[in-house]
Amino acid sequence: MPLDLNSDLGEGFGPWAMGDDAAMLDIVTSANIACGFHAGDPSIMRRTCALAVERGVRIGAHVGHRDLVGFGRREIAVSPDELRDEVLYQIAALDAFVKVAGDRVRYVKPHGALYHSAAGHREIADAVLAALTEYDAGLALLGPAGTQLEAAAVDAKIRFVGEGFADRAYTPEGSLAPRGVPGAVLHADDAVAQAISIASSGSARTVAGGSIVVPASSLCVHGDTPAAVEMARRIRAALAESGVAVESFA
Amino acid sequence: MPLDLNSDLGEGFGPWAMGDDAAMLDIVTSANIACGFHAGDPSIMRRTCALAVERGVRIGAHVGHRDLVGFGRREIAVSPDELRDEVLYQIAALDAFVKVAGDRVRYVKPHGALYHSAAGHREIADAVLAALTEYDAGLALLGPAGTQLEAAAVDAKIRFVGEGFADRAYTPEGSLAPRGVPGAVLHADDAVAQAISIASSGSARTVAGGSIVVPASSLCVHGDTPAAVEMARRIRAALAESGVAVESFA
Amino acid sequence: MPLDLNSDLGEGFGPWAMGDDAAMLDIVTSANIACGFHAGDPSIMRRTCALAVERGVRIGAHVGHRDLVGFGRREIAVSPDELRDEVLYQIAALDAFVKVAGDRVRYVKPHGALYHSAAGHREIADAVLAALTEYDAGLALLGPAGTQLEAAAVDAKIRFVGEGFADRAYTPEGSLAPRGVPGAVLHADDAVAQAISIASSGSARTVAGGSIVVPASSLCVHGDTPAAVEMARRIRAALAESGVAVESFA
Amino acid sequence: MPLDLNSDLGEGFGPWAMGDDAAMLDIVTSANIACGFHAGDPSIMRRTCALAVERGVRIGAHVGHRDLVGFGRREIAVSPDELRDEVLYQIAALDAFVKVAGDRVRYVKPHGALYHSAAGHREIADAVLAALTEYDAGLALLGPAGTQLEAAAVDAKIRFVGEGFADRAYTPEGSLAPRGVPGAVLHADDAVAQAISIASSGSARTVAGGSIVVPASSLCVHGDTPAAVEMARRIRAALAESGVAVESFA
Repeated sequence: MPLDLNSDLGEGFGPWAMGDDAAMLDIVTSANIACGFHAGDPSIMRRTCALAVERGVRIGAHVGHRDLVGFGRREIAVSPDELRDEVLYQIAALDAFVKVAGDRVRYVKPHGALYHSAAGHREIADAVLAALTEYDAGLALLGPAGTQLEAAAVDAKIRFVGEGFADRAYTPEGSLAPRGVPGAVLHADDAVAQAISIASSGSARTVAGGSIVVPASSLCVHGDTPAAVEMARRIRAALAESGVAVESFA
Repeated sequence: MPLDLNSDLGEGFGPWAMGDDAAMLDIVTSANIACGFHAGDPSIMRRTCALAVERGVRIGAHVGHRDLVGFGRREIAVSPDELRDEVLYQIAALDAFVKVAGDRVRYVKPHGALYHSAAGHREIADAVLAALTEYDAGLALLGPAGTQLEAAAVDAKIRFVGEGFADRAYTPEGSLAPRGVPGAVLHADDAVAQAISIASSGSARTVAGGSIVVPASSLCVHGDTPAAVEMARRIRAALAESGVAVESFA
Repeated sequence: MPLDLNSDLGEGFGPWAMGDDAAMLDIVTSANIACGFHAGDPSIMRRTCALAVERGVRIGAHVGHRDLVGFGRREIAVSPDELRDEVLYQIAALDAFVKVAGDRVRYVKPHGALYHSAAGHREIADAVLAALTEYDAGLALLGPAGTQLEAAAVDAKIRFVGEGFADRAYTPEGSLAPRGVPGAVLHADDAVAQAISIASSGSARTVAGGSIVVPASSLCVHGDTPAAVEMARRIRAALAESGVAVESFA
Repeated sequence: MPLDLNSDLGEGFGPWAMGDDAAMLDIVTSANIACGFHAGDPSIMRRTCALAVERGVRIGAHVGHRDLVGFGRREIAVSPDELRDEVLYQIAALDAFVKVAGDRVRYVKPHGALYHSAAGHREIADAVLAALTEYDAGLALLGPAGTQLEAAAVDAKIRFVGEGFADRAYTPEGSLAPRGVPGAVLHADDAVAQAISIASSGSARTVAGGSIVVPASSLCVHGDTPAAVEMARRIRAALAESGVAVESFA
């Protein structure tokens, strides 16, 4: 089974940069590109889409709350209708830049606080799916498996792609251990091992020492620091050595 | 020759309303809908697009500077590349809501300070046209005739639609008399007469007392006050009585 | 015991107006003025402060979440430290305009979602109080009595002023009945009666038919519609007729 | 004559950082701190003010256009009255954090496009001075000598402090050579020499090869790249070796 590597890109805003997008686009097969609500602006969107399409990297709309100062990481009690409208707006705006670059948006991934609230609350997940479906029912949804997001996608007859994390430890219940917990953030060697484990056996070790099923067709890797980029590069190389085909799901 | 009536709609933001969109949509044949940069938000865009399509009113993207507090009325020295990207972003975002409502964006009209700077500066006009062409070369451009906007549209092989104003006096040079000038803003009777004149003879009287050619296939009417709505209604009725077909150009 | 009448004012933004501030400033004794985060902008703040000081109306900083599109009505999971900083920023910015007008900010009132979260969560209330104390420990805090806001004010040795509502029905537990509940929003006659009841006996009838203590030294009245302004005017007149002195607490 | 070294600090926003403020605060004697309009947010303002006061660095309000995406570098046609209100808002908000840190705002410096428009247009300069005077007539104004800003300060009886640049070449007319011009940006050695020249003789060489008077009591140095920080450090060291006392004007 091939594995996709995805990363959050295009997360600058105006004069401010974040991460090394060019480096990451040589590593990943899918780019979650910010759409201007939690990060990104039209010119950054154009540039990032062009770079991604040049390298054959698939593009997803990384949709988030309208919250630049909080980077979309703060839960906002937006109504489902407003959220649906905000998500539709973001997908459409990004797609224009992808089309100029010669491709089209292939999938949607919720960002930050929206990722978590959509995973846990069906009405939030439904709002995301409603926007996706309105825009193009051929888009996939990328998110955490076994959650309300997956259930909503299934009910909406939208292709769901489960996402795993190489550098974050799992709880026995299958969710990510909170960052504050000791061992929640894996070091490079462990992250590489976890990537191989998810790719080859669909499972990962938990913080409790046991093992858990991680139904992921895509692994999320980060590029916000040089060390993160280097870890992503090692994961990609290790997957190749293990005979795992790294290619986009989209 | 038929005449189009257009109006700026969807100009609320969040909790704030502006104008009586529902009333205007019973009067006009084209709706310039704000796209979230100088006014409008995703939910207002959805609502306004749905209302317009229900009434058979054509929709144009009313693109403006990113300036909510200034309502897009303040000139901003945006670079042509940034402007092109901001305009593309806005057209695409609006089009998603028009499509959900069952139609598609038919034209683009620059708003406020951008209307004036694009009319006067070729590189600004070219940036607007570049975005329009990238998005869909079948869209029309609505703006002031005889300006850089028209020249840029002609060179880009984009259909240009000249816009006139019923309630604003013209200078002998064919531009609008500045609002500060006595007589610059016409009262209802004069506005109705000017509408008839533009529709029937393609001309209007100037503040200097003479007459000038106004090559307009579309008249802009306003809906921000009850009196403005009433004036628009009278203009529409007077055009019908004069045998002018009021229909959209798009 | 005198009673204060307060109202939320200065709630426009850029080109958008809200409510009839001039009319309300002839009715109330305290003005909660928005500080630019959920509504208001520097020029509106200057104008509203000048009008209030001219009429001898006391001014409080109406501090809210940074959320124009949501008007501060949506809960945002801001950290206590960030909230403290945002509240301090808002109080200070408003105070500059009050000082130019010849007075100074006298109190702080949280707005919208922040009003409710600060009432219910001690760490949010503490963040508001921390900012207030840092700015000027002589400021009062206006908010709902018997809540975390009052407890936090008492512990911070800040003067607390309880707020009641004339036009909203109370539950037997002393909180406001949610707007969806039948009878939650009182009609004018009932609102006037409730104002008199709170002023004279410190109590109000509940949706369940009983009576409850409402420890309020200030009544909140609204001015967003002509009917609301008229109701506020009637309440002020009825209080005067009942011999209640209407004057600011600050 | 002592010389002040100033730098633009606190220019991050939300999740985005800019420059190495901690390093620069060991080099400069005055910190121009962004106030949230072109950069900065309340929490960044608090942190930066605390760091500056700890090191004995004087703080000025770096006031700019409300334009995060353009970083205040784009000219915006704001009216003088609106500008005055925006500047007052910013000074007051920043001062709250300086006071919490144990000092107070000592001066005002316009940022980016506002720096240039205020230097060239008297009504813009007057608007900045009006806000400064309303807030505290004891504040100084830091800006380019021989401009409308200086003239406005003189007429308003506000102390004016002329600012020079070590790393930018001057034209024979005394303004900065535009960045596009060859030789407009000086390399480290030349910048150090220019700093010494301005400090010791009040003059600098021009791009035309001649010499010009630069009446500067403060030199602006940058910290946005490691190389810029290193250049600033070298300038400070070279000034000390030359016997120039480096201390704040404020």
